[in-house]
Amino acid sequence: MLLGHGSGGRMTAELLARFFLPAFSNPILDQLNDQAVFDVHGIRLALTTDAFVVSPLFFPGGDIGCLAVNGTINDLAMCGAMPLALSAAFILEEGLPFDDLQRVITSMADACRTAGVQLVTGDTKVVERGKGDGLFITTTGIGIVTHSLTISADRAQPGDCLLVSGPIGDHGIAVLSAREGLEFETTLVSDTAPLHTLVQAMMAVSPDIHCLRDPTRGGLASTLNELAISSRVGMRFDENRLPIRDEVRAACELLGLDPLYVACEGRLVAIVGARDADAVLACMHAHPCGAEARMIGEVVAVHPGMVTMRTVFGSERVVDMLAGAQLPRIC
Amino acid sequence: MLLGHGSGGRMTAELLARFFLPAFSNPILDQLNDQAVFDVHGIRLALTTDAFVVSPLFFPGGDIGCLAVNGTINDLAMCGAMPLALSAAFILEEGLPFDDLQRVITSMADACRTAGVQLVTGDTKVVERGKGDGLFITTTGIGIVTHSLTISADRAQPGDCLLVSGPIGDHGIAVLSAREGLEFETTLVSDTAPLHTLVQAMMAVSPDIHCLRDPTRGGLASTLNELAISSRVGMRFDENRLPIRDEVRAACELLGLDPLYVACEGRLVAIVGARDADAVLACMHAHPCGAEARMIGEVVAVHPGMVTMRTVFGSERVVDMLAGAQLPRIC
Repeated sequence: MLLGHGSGGRMTAELLARFFLPAFSNPILDQLNDQAVFDVHGIRLALTTDAFVVSPLFFPGGDIGCLAVNGTINDLAMCGAMPLALSAAFILEEGLPFDDLQRVITSMADACRTAGVQLVTGDTKVVERGKGDGLFITTTGIGIVTHSLTISADRAQPGDCLLVSGPIGDHGIAVLSAREGLEFETTLVSDTAPLHTLVQAMMAVSPDIHCLRDPTRGGLASTLNELAISSRVGMRFDENRLPIRDEVRAACELLGLDPLYVACEGRLVAIVGARDADAVLACMHAHPCGAEARMIGEVVAVHPGMVTMRTVFGSERVVDMLAGAQLPRIC
Repeated sequence: MLLGHGSGGRMTAELLARFFLPAFSNPILDQLNDQAVFDVHGIRLALTTDAFVVSPLFFPGGDIGCLAVNGTINDLAMCGAMPLALSAAFILEEGLPFDDLQRVITSMADACRTAGVQLVTGDTKVVERGKGDGLFITTTGIGIVTHSLTISADRAQPGDCLLVSGPIGDHGIAVLSAREGLEFETTLVSDTAPLHTLVQAMMAVSPDIHCLRDPTRGGLASTLNELAISSRVGMRFDENRLPIRDEVRAACELLGLDPLYVACEGRLVAIVGARDADAVLACMHAHPCGAEARMIGEVVAVHPGMVTMRTVFGSERVVDMLAGAQLPRIC
């Protein structure tokens, strides 16, 4: 097992394809969405789980606690579900300072209140010093899907528009700025935020939202590649339409990173039928989590499974999935 | 943070009371059941989560994979819920052999098939070598409660009977027998098993099942103490009615352990109205997971919150919760 297997890139996809999917294969899991949606006595429920191992535990604009709440709410939101309840399982390392635990829990509780969702059950385990890393949190969310749309990774169609809800890469760079040995000055803060009310607002103006995904591990480039592969379509976007803050550009240059692969934790990519794209974009602009939303490109029929970018120099280049980790342990 | 905080004993209870419950308090969480039960549009859903950090990953009769499936199914079963779906989040340590991962996943998939439940969504993260311990798995289960009984830790009443579904301590001793530095010869295997069909059978013969709990971390003694505290009743049982295998007794003597505190992973404690106790016991005997079930004692009005044992010598002694860990990382 290599660190790259946790990157969210091609090595993660290979790990899933080689070990997990053959063993557990079923029609829901095989959809490879970030959440499972299934019917229970006529009610559509959504279920999603994520392990959070971000290092360090605290970073500008957030910490592992609020990240674990918002991240799971967002995985529910990406199928248009409203969160009903959360669970949380803590793996604590012997020696973790109680003050750190208190800060994380307070932050989680605040994030739950902000999002209007309750933590209803949990578990705590403790491992010996040196067998963990302070604190890992796995949150699971259950949500309800009350609309009749099917929002899924395999629904992008040629002609659809690509929307991004705000600047990319803030979270990844904020975490890096706090990382030991990499500390650099920036005013940047993580974009971690719950996106379920933004999604509800978008669905209210358009029945033609085909895909939603939050570009976390692996960043925007990996997310677009996943959607292009699942939908068997091509995608094309313009470099000069990408929302990227100057601080993120500067940090990426300094560190030799490509902002296309840097994680967000409070952004979404929406793939929307062309006719509705302007209305959805306007609706996003009216929501605090979408004020800096942009239309960046479109879905194309050519080169299915491939994502390309028109560069600022006018050329077109392939934006591939990375094999391994540009930034390990970013969430 | 000390290892004892993960023991499932008094230190775990204090950790919850000091940090988690004040921050997240809500009527569902505050019940301190091993699962949350709540209504969604007239359907009663159950949600439960558990992090599994057992060491070593493989032990006689099981491994972390089947344990993670059965443990979560059992937490659903303990409120009488039937499992609908599971999620699993994996925290993998860099360097974990792929063969180990394959064995664990195969075992999980087998356990899912045996129990008739599907894994519908998941997550994988990888941490650097030395920041984890091979493999941690958090499983979350969602279940449906179709009966109208309220099975809850606070429902034990004086006069109720205490039933145990089979020999106690097998799992804990099986794990210890595989632990580095503690290896000893035994033919014992873990009792890990899914108990939802046993519970369904029990509910079919009696509407008067008040409490169900699986005595995992902290063993039978901790479970009875938890139930006595939640229900504000006393409990009394007979030492000579306890089902304990000779191998478990022998290993406990060798290691200086008390079998009352050694974990099971395929047993349950049932607190049942006296009139129905014989019928429930007979029903348990007819099920493969309850063939060795015993009635061990009764709920009493005296000494609320306290558990006592009539010893084989005829005296009565208090069976307290342990403060910390008798056996760390048993599940």
